[in-house]
Amino acid sequence: MKMNHYCYEDIQEGMNCSFLVNVSQKMMDSFYEITGDSNELHRNLTYAHTKGYKSKVVYGMLTASFLSTIAGVYLPGEKSLIQKVEISFTKPVYVGDELEVFGEVLEKNDLFKFIVLKVSIKRGTEKVLRGKMQVGIIN
Amino acid sequence: MKMNHYCYEDIQEGMNCSFLVNVSQKMMDSFYEITGDSNELHRNLTYAHTKGYKSKVVYGMLTASFLSTIAGVYLPGEKSLIQKVEISFTKPVYVGDELEVFGEVLEKNDLFKFIVLKVSIKRGTEKVLRGKMQVGIIN
Repeated sequence: MKMNHYCYEDIQEGMNCSFLVNVSQKMMDSFYEITGDSNELHRNLTYAHTKGYKSKVVYGMLTASFLSTIAGVYLPGEKSLIQKVEISFTKPVYVGDELEVFGEVLEKNDLFKFIVLKVSIKRGTEKVLRGKMQVGIIN
Repeated sequence: MKMNHYCYEDIQEGMNCSFLVNVSQKMMDSFYEITGDSNELHRNLTYAHTKGYKSKVVYGMLTASFLSTIAGVYLPGEKSLIQKVEISFTKPVYVGDELEVFGEVLEKNDLFKFIVLKVSIKRGTEKVLRGKMQVGIIN
């Protein structure tokens, strides 16, 4: 991933970014180590099956963590500071899924120098996460 | 952390949970490995200083990842599935900070069997994150 260095003035409505990511078991283990979230739905295949899921369900907040990369690497990149996040999880994500993470500039706020991004994450054509993110651009 | 096993019927408005967590460099490294977010503000002490921060700034979405634990371990615990998250980051968090993570049941939706939690994260008396989270309770 190549870091962008956009200043507030460089950003235009409609600018967008996307990248692919594979959700691995290693990511799941790391997320568990960070959070201590020992919920069986994320960690026990048999349990997930009994609840009607085809595999271990990826932590929603792990899926959401890729929004960090949208802001911190791409839009605007270096000068980013996330201020607000509003997201819905629309489908379960499974370990091993390949996800496409997408961000697009919806609006700019000249007074406070923040941008609002529309964000979404897809598996193939299915949207698994959608929402908005407000990102400040620091000098 | 002891996992709760609340069913929808067990949950009452006003129920709450809190726990302490220390944000370590190891967590920061793990979050970087998961997301690939190489932003210098989170990884380079000298850079963070030049931007006016007293230390490396914790990834906002890492701080937010502790919301996973609120739902997945405490409220409601085992039967949890996060549906929506709306959060604001109100102060920078630094590596080494001790945070208190707090959740409280604001409302219940009997038709769709979800609960809405008010969530906040504090460093001492300072709120660093606040918001709401909608959590489904599965059978």
